[in-house]
Amino acid sequence: MQPFPFSAIVGQDEMKQALTLTAIDPSIGGVLVFGDRGTGKSTAVRSLAALLPPIEAVAGCPYNCAFAAPDPACPHCGAHPKKTAQTRPAPVVDLPLGATEDRVVGALDLERALTRGEKAFEPGLLARAHRGYLYIDEVNLLEDHLVDLLLDVAASGENVVEREGLSLRHPAKFVIVGSGNPEEGELRPQLLDRFGLSVEVASPRDIRERVEVIRRRDAYERDPAPFLKKWRTADTRHRKKIMAARERLGAVAVSDAILEKTAELCIALGADGLRGELTLMRAARALAAFDGADAVTGAHLRSVAPSALRHRLRRDPLDEAGSTTRVQRIIDEVLPA
Amino acid sequence: MQPFPFSAIVGQDEMKQALTLTAIDPSIGGVLVFGDRGTGKSTAVRSLAALLPPIEAVAGCPYNCAFAAPDPACPHCGAHPKKTAQTRPAPVVDLPLGATEDRVVGALDLERALTRGEKAFEPGLLARAHRGYLYIDEVNLLEDHLVDLLLDVAASGENVVEREGLSLRHPAKFVIVGSGNPEEGELRPQLLDRFGLSVEVASPRDIRERVEVIRRRDAYERDPAPFLKKWRTADTRHRKKIMAARERLGAVAVSDAILEKTAELCIALGADGLRGELTLMRAARALAAFDGADAVTGAHLRSVAPSALRHRLRRDPLDEAGSTTRVQRIIDEVLPA
Amino acid sequence: MQPFPFSAIVGQDEMKQALTLTAIDPSIGGVLVFGDRGTGKSTAVRSLAALLPPIEAVAGCPYNCAFAAPDPACPHCGAHPKKTAQTRPAPVVDLPLGATEDRVVGALDLERALTRGEKAFEPGLLARAHRGYLYIDEVNLLEDHLVDLLLDVAASGENVVEREGLSLRHPAKFVIVGSGNPEEGELRPQLLDRFGLSVEVASPRDIRERVEVIRRRDAYERDPAPFLKKWRTADTRHRKKIMAARERLGAVAVSDAILEKTAELCIALGADGLRGELTLMRAARALAAFDGADAVTGAHLRSVAPSALRHRLRRDPLDEAGSTTRVQRIIDEVLPA
Amino acid sequence: MQPFPFSAIVGQDEMKQALTLTAIDPSIGGVLVFGDRGTGKSTAVRSLAALLPPIEAVAGCPYNCAFAAPDPACPHCGAHPKKTAQTRPAPVVDLPLGATEDRVVGALDLERALTRGEKAFEPGLLARAHRGYLYIDEVNLLEDHLVDLLLDVAASGENVVEREGLSLRHPAKFVIVGSGNPEEGELRPQLLDRFGLSVEVASPRDIRERVEVIRRRDAYERDPAPFLKKWRTADTRHRKKIMAARERLGAVAVSDAILEKTAELCIALGADGLRGELTLMRAARALAAFDGADAVTGAHLRSVAPSALRHRLRRDPLDEAGSTTRVQRIIDEVLPA
Amino acid sequence: MQPFPFSAIVGQDEMKQALTLTAIDPSIGGVLVFGDRGTGKSTAVRSLAALLPPIEAVAGCPYNCAFAAPDPACPHCGAHPKKTAQTRPAPVVDLPLGATEDRVVGALDLERALTRGEKAFEPGLLARAHRGYLYIDEVNLLEDHLVDLLLDVAASGENVVEREGLSLRHPAKFVIVGSGNPEEGELRPQLLDRFGLSVEVASPRDIRERVEVIRRRDAYERDPAPFLKKWRTADTRHRKKIMAARERLGAVAVSDAILEKTAELCIALGADGLRGELTLMRAARALAAFDGADAVTGAHLRSVAPSALRHRLRRDPLDEAGSTTRVQRIIDEVLPA
Amino acid sequence: MQPFPFSAIVGQDEMKQALTLTAIDPSIGGVLVFGDRGTGKSTAVRSLAALLPPIEAVAGCPYNCAFAAPDPACPHCGAHPKKTAQTRPAPVVDLPLGATEDRVVGALDLERALTRGEKAFEPGLLARAHRGYLYIDEVNLLEDHLVDLLLDVAASGENVVEREGLSLRHPAKFVIVGSGNPEEGELRPQLLDRFGLSVEVASPRDIRERVEVIRRRDAYERDPAPFLKKWRTADTRHRKKIMAARERLGAVAVSDAILEKTAELCIALGADGLRGELTLMRAARALAAFDGADAVTGAHLRSVAPSALRHRLRRDPLDEAGSTTRVQRIIDEVLPA
Repeated sequence: MQPFPFSAIVGQDEMKQALTLTAIDPSIGGVLVFGDRGTGKSTAVRSLAALLPPIEAVAGCPYNCAFAAPDPACPHCGAHPKKTAQTRPAPVVDLPLGATEDRVVGALDLERALTRGEKAFEPGLLARAHRGYLYIDEVNLLEDHLVDLLLDVAASGENVVEREGLSLRHPAKFVIVGSGNPEEGELRPQLLDRFGLSVEVASPRDIRERVEVIRRRDAYERDPAPFLKKWRTADTRHRKKIMAARERLGAVAVSDAILEKTAELCIALGADGLRGELTLMRAARALAAFDGADAVTGAHLRSVAPSALRHRLRRDPLDEAGSTTRVQRIIDEVLPA
Repeated sequence: MQPFPFSAIVGQDEMKQALTLTAIDPSIGGVLVFGDRGTGKSTAVRSLAALLPPIEAVAGCPYNCAFAAPDPACPHCGAHPKKTAQTRPAPVVDLPLGATEDRVVGALDLERALTRGEKAFEPGLLARAHRGYLYIDEVNLLEDHLVDLLLDVAASGENVVEREGLSLRHPAKFVIVGSGNPEEGELRPQLLDRFGLSVEVASPRDIRERVEVIRRRDAYERDPAPFLKKWRTADTRHRKKIMAARERLGAVAVSDAILEKTAELCIALGADGLRGELTLMRAARALAAFDGADAVTGAHLRSVAPSALRHRLRRDPLDEAGSTTRVQRIIDEVLPA
Repeated sequence: MQPFPFSAIVGQDEMKQALTLTAIDPSIGGVLVFGDRGTGKSTAVRSLAALLPPIEAVAGCPYNCAFAAPDPACPHCGAHPKKTAQTRPAPVVDLPLGATEDRVVGALDLERALTRGEKAFEPGLLARAHRGYLYIDEVNLLEDHLVDLLLDVAASGENVVEREGLSLRHPAKFVIVGSGNPEEGELRPQLLDRFGLSVEVASPRDIRERVEVIRRRDAYERDPAPFLKKWRTADTRHRKKIMAARERLGAVAVSDAILEKTAELCIALGADGLRGELTLMRAARALAAFDGADAVTGAHLRSVAPSALRHRLRRDPLDEAGSTTRVQRIIDEVLPA
Repeated sequence: MQPFPFSAIVGQDEMKQALTLTAIDPSIGGVLVFGDRGTGKSTAVRSLAALLPPIEAVAGCPYNCAFAAPDPACPHCGAHPKKTAQTRPAPVVDLPLGATEDRVVGALDLERALTRGEKAFEPGLLARAHRGYLYIDEVNLLEDHLVDLLLDVAASGENVVEREGLSLRHPAKFVIVGSGNPEEGELRPQLLDRFGLSVEVASPRDIRERVEVIRRRDAYERDPAPFLKKWRTADTRHRKKIMAARERLGAVAVSDAILEKTAELCIALGADGLRGELTLMRAARALAAFDGADAVTGAHLRSVAPSALRHRLRRDPLDEAGSTTRVQRIIDEVLPA
Repeated sequence: MQPFPFSAIVGQDEMKQALTLTAIDPSIGGVLVFGDRGTGKSTAVRSLAALLPPIEAVAGCPYNCAFAAPDPACPHCGAHPKKTAQTRPAPVVDLPLGATEDRVVGALDLERALTRGEKAFEPGLLARAHRGYLYIDEVNLLEDHLVDLLLDVAASGENVVEREGLSLRHPAKFVIVGSGNPEEGELRPQLLDRFGLSVEVASPRDIRERVEVIRRRDAYERDPAPFLKKWRTADTRHRKKIMAARERLGAVAVSDAILEKTAELCIALGADGLRGELTLMRAARALAAFDGADAVTGAHLRSVAPSALRHRLRRDPLDEAGSTTRVQRIIDEVLPA
Repeated sequence: MQPFPFSAIVGQDEMKQALTLTAIDPSIGGVLVFGDRGTGKSTAVRSLAALLPPIEAVAGCPYNCAFAAPDPACPHCGAHPKKTAQTRPAPVVDLPLGATEDRVVGALDLERALTRGEKAFEPGLLARAHRGYLYIDEVNLLEDHLVDLLLDVAASGENVVEREGLSLRHPAKFVIVGSGNPEEGELRPQLLDRFGLSVEVASPRDIRERVEVIRRRDAYERDPAPFLKKWRTADTRHRKKIMAARERLGAVAVSDAILEKTAELCIALGADGLRGELTLMRAARALAAFDGADAVTGAHLRSVAPSALRHRLRRDPLDEAGSTTRVQRIIDEVLPA
């Protein structure tokens, strides 16, 4: 069944913006979605992916290599010089609960090993997620070392395999979207810092809004066709804006003044390292591109700063305010609206 | 031996209603049955299933595909274009204690791997439960990740397998019925929320009722035939009502006023997410259909609200009342009888 | 060596009665024997089994199927239509310490798998115990999930196997006798409740009785033949009484008044569920049959109530009396002698 | 190298007596030796075994079956009707640290399984210990379940194997000698009770005695031949006394008065069960046989009581005296010298 | 993509010096880099390696044997007498998260074992790192025994393999660079002591410097070619200085006075063992060689002492100052500037 | 590279004496070396072994059997009656970190099992260490059961293997040298007692001595040949003294007075068992032999007593002095200089 339309999602603006920005510039990094279950986190990722243009891949390549520029390190494309193009939907790969590590990173192809005595590699979920999304529900329940591995691969764009006598690397560029519930175990600060953006979602407290959510969900599930048709135009408009933004991205200027404000914000917030700064700059630039602007402005910074910095705050035992409130307070000081 | 007749169960009205409603609309989700051992939880599920009409499946399909509309994702039906119909009883699958995970989700068919060198999938219990019930005794003793997996499959209606070099998906729509004893470990709130309804059962405290239970049980076990015959009419009547309700379900109206009451209830109870709301609406609609009504009324809401919301309450350390009492109090406020 | 004669056991009347009653009506359920080591628990089970009449089985059937009525679900008898009868002693199967789970429930027959490439089932101890006893020394040291599994099988009379690609069921009706030491770990209340009867054994504190125990044991071990001969008559008499009681059992009446007393007792004791009630009724009926009575009387109830209810009491932190004392107190109130 | 002569052991009378008695009547059960390392515990067992007469076995039987009376349950002798006799030294089997469970109880013979496709049993250490000794250094460091298993086998004289698709039993009668250090973990009371005797050993505190120990040890290690020759006569005398005692054992009388004293002692000491009583009686009878007496006397009881009862005392938190002192105090009361 | 130029790294002088010195004299040992994530630790290692001259190896040798002097213990070169030279970049090997131990040390070549029945060795990461760098991100998260093993190999220059029936040794000389975050678990003092140098890195707190870091990073990532070209000259100059220092190293004098100062420093700091002293001497000598000096001076000692000694301090619970401060205080006393 | 010369080791007299004595009489037992890392513990063992005369072995025997007297239990020499001699250096075997247990004790030869279907034994490190040294770095980090096993083998001179269906024994006489750091976990007293001698090493605190250590180490590493030549004479002299002492050992007298002093010392120190006494006597005798004396004197006892007894002291919570101080105090009382 076709996913729920991205545009039909009621509210949840911060989440929608974060997903949109990483669709424009995947180097922003992964998105962490905090919030209660039942607030449509998984729906949103699938909706966005369905709205993106399909990718053009090398036919038969299990690594989704771009037909226009096959990765030289790709095990398949390196071994198959003749290529034809194939159009595929932008991949959204679920990391199912209980997926074994060998299925995630890939493993020795047992069938070929047993039947042909060859040591061949069978690509895993990371290969399949290349050029798309890897969705991890309840990322906080995953073992740290696996999250670390996923973030490493996503950051380097390459999956390095050293196991079972196999030694290879293949392209694996994707955006991780991890949902988590802050009440159940937490990610280590080290891991938090490696996600690009974080957003908070919650059920609407306004009754009309809630009824609207239920109505739309019910309509979609009972009879999808007319519902999908009704929202198609809005989704198409959103896709076009994303594609235009990708084009513009290289041309958007970032002034020294803006960069200094970026640094000021990070220092004021006590964010470790420079990753926050780089992310903030990139997210603001992607937003500017989405808005059709020529240069990043303070307003762009203000808009993306909570998502880019919230999860990078050190816990302050003397400050009882939540991180969202603390980030906003600093933003208001450094970048008065 | 044929199961104990559904209609011969003494009392336990809430449990019987919950099972009946999920038989009308399986999208309501699973049922959690809390209560002491020896209160006939497992009996009730088997009784209900025996009362339901058999399903019409594709002959030879280990996934119970509907003959009328075989699932396009079904690994068997996709590979076998010629089909004949086969009638099967509505499946009730037990998750036996100690069942290994590979038998639950399915696994590599070792026999074929060893004898024919093929990597084939051998369906597990999830496949067998498709279009029926999966009964889990003492669900609270199961490992969280397995419960999570089962709920995921039940919710999506699809079993996604990524293990042992296998990568496939097959239809698996079923209603989970889990029994639990509140005194022995608890399910995480995250898991609770994913069950549609919950009911509480207890041994009757009325002596006559107890004697009646023992009498009926004894009669059934000593000489089943006359006992079953005696209750057949009542069971047939119940089945017909369920089948009629399935037909009506699409036509039952849910007014905005009702939806607003639904939302009000959930907000008043502080239930996280919107899952409670959706479940409440669906359960009330199924009840209206069962009652032969054209639209959901406040009475329907009132009747199903305890089952739909009880397990979604946040624990309130300042309120010593049990969740049933608290739910009822709120219902009385929001929906005075 | 032939077991110690049942009739030669000194004292231990409660244990002997419990074993006798389950020999009359196995649906009473298993027997838990609490007490110090060295009090002859294992001896008693073996003694009783040796005294029972042999069973008539289908020759070659590893599941002990009754020749008169082979179980339709039996994997062996289903596949072998021609049958001859074979007489076997009533089985007493020990669950040896360190027995692996596959030997208990049965497992893939590796020899056939390796030599003939067939996936055949090799029956385990549960199959061998069918129609007899399964003795578990120190049941409290067994893992909970294994005890649960054994109780499930004993209760349903069927062993459901879902492992290693095997999926089958075979008859397995037996009485579990578990010995335990209350000082070393305890069974969960959930498991306790699933045993039919419980008895307490202790070394006699009377010196003459102790000397008699040692004397008999010594006589038996030094020269078994004359000792066995001496007790044969008493054992034969006991066997005949058991066999007569099995015949009468169906005809023993249970009045409503008796059932009401049963319920009253259980409510007064706060025993969860209705399992205690059912067991109490069945045990009293078996005792009435053993006594040659036409109907259950209050005296029968009184006699079996401690065994049937002692292990079902909730712990009462305010009542320092042991459960035996508390059960007796209530019995005296509800059923004054 | 031939073991150190039993008679050349300086002091350690209690340990020597315990080993001697179990050599006369193995049904007394195992011996627990408590004490510091370096006090010659392992030496004593080896010394005693070397002094015992060799056993006459069935040639080729890996289970040490007696030629005169091969065990009917023996897997080897059952399959080989033609037998010739073979003389073997009384076996002393060490349970080496890190021995795997399959080597202890025996296991599937992998070589035959792989090369001939047969499921044959390869006997383990328990088979090899039949009719001799099993020595376990630091038995308190062994896992409980393994100790339990060893005690079960020793008590029943039979090794019941239910694993890896194997299901067999073979004779395995042996005396367990376990050494332990009370400072490093303790055995559970349940396990303690199943050892027949316990002794305490300590380094002598008398300087001359210590020098004598060192001298003898040094003489033995530097030039064994003359040392062994010097002690041969004493060892031969001890062997003859043991063999004579075995003959007499059946004829030694145990009066009721003695049995009552036995019971009195056990009750006064609060020893659980009747195992202590049986052991005490048997040990006293073996000692009487060793002394050439016709009947057990109070003096025999007095002599063996500490070994038979010390490890069966319940810990008494109000009595600070060690168990040896407490046992002696009671003996002095019940059996004044 | 070519690594970021070493010379373009902003600040981080201590880290750059440490890496440079181990490039001159690898016997100084490994480098520990403490500091927040996102401070470019991994970048620096890769940058330095890219700047070093390539190595000349035996063609086909998986152990990177020097063509000029193949290691006599090399399993490949020993078996292949005819050799040709091959130029390879100085290796930088990542220890990826989740790399299995067999891939690190090497293992049985399963493919050859299965297809040709030969027991051959398949070299692991340690072989590949020979004559280069082994980079371990978050070394503090690695298991102690693995870190120990890596340090053993690095120190001895040889990988000794005793596993899976393999028994061999091959050359493996490399510099370990481990990054760690002091907030997440710590290395045991025993492991700390075995690293040669340690450095601390932190994000710059100066806004202009931060902006410069972001700018350079952004320029490099957006269009690497011109950026690399701009820094090529500086990198080449640095390489030439390293190569010259390697030549000079043997000729740099270390006076007794300098050695005594070295010892004084270590004693004053309470550094265990003599490893600190040896490292300090070697690092100072390498620095002198880099500076083109003929002899080590106090200034050289002063410059390298913090890196050589910081991680060897015993924790002093009475001194709240960090180790850097404490080292500096002692240096100022022993070696006043 | 040839090891560092034994005679060139600066200081560390106690360690050098302990190693020398066990080279004269290996029955003294293993040596425990306590002290900081970086104090040359591993160097000393290698140095000593290099100085010892080579052993004469049976050519081809993987168990280092003496050509003059092959062990009758040797699996190789038993099967190969024709023998030629082969000279080998005295073995020093490292127990590398991460060595698997099967490589230590030996295991099934998988290659032969797979290719020839034979169950053959592949000797492990214990076989290789026969007649030499087994060096264990950080023995306190090894698992207790492995240390126990190694000590058992070293004490009995025989490796008994009972695993994987293998059952054999082969000679394995060696001296264990274990280094440990008292700050990181401790050995159990039971294990401590089984080492013959213990020594403490520390970095010199004298600056000149430290400089000398560094100088010698530097000279050796930079240009080994002249350094080794310089110390060859001293090493040869030491070897000759060891060989002469081996010859004399049997003739050195130990008077009763000396033995009594030995016992007095052990009693005064409260050392458990008699192992301390035996070791002390043997070490003193070896020292006497090394000194060319005809009989052991009080001075010999005094000299070796700290090494022989230090690790056998019970911890005394009321005595804050370290064990070295306490041992010395007692020695001064019992054996005034």
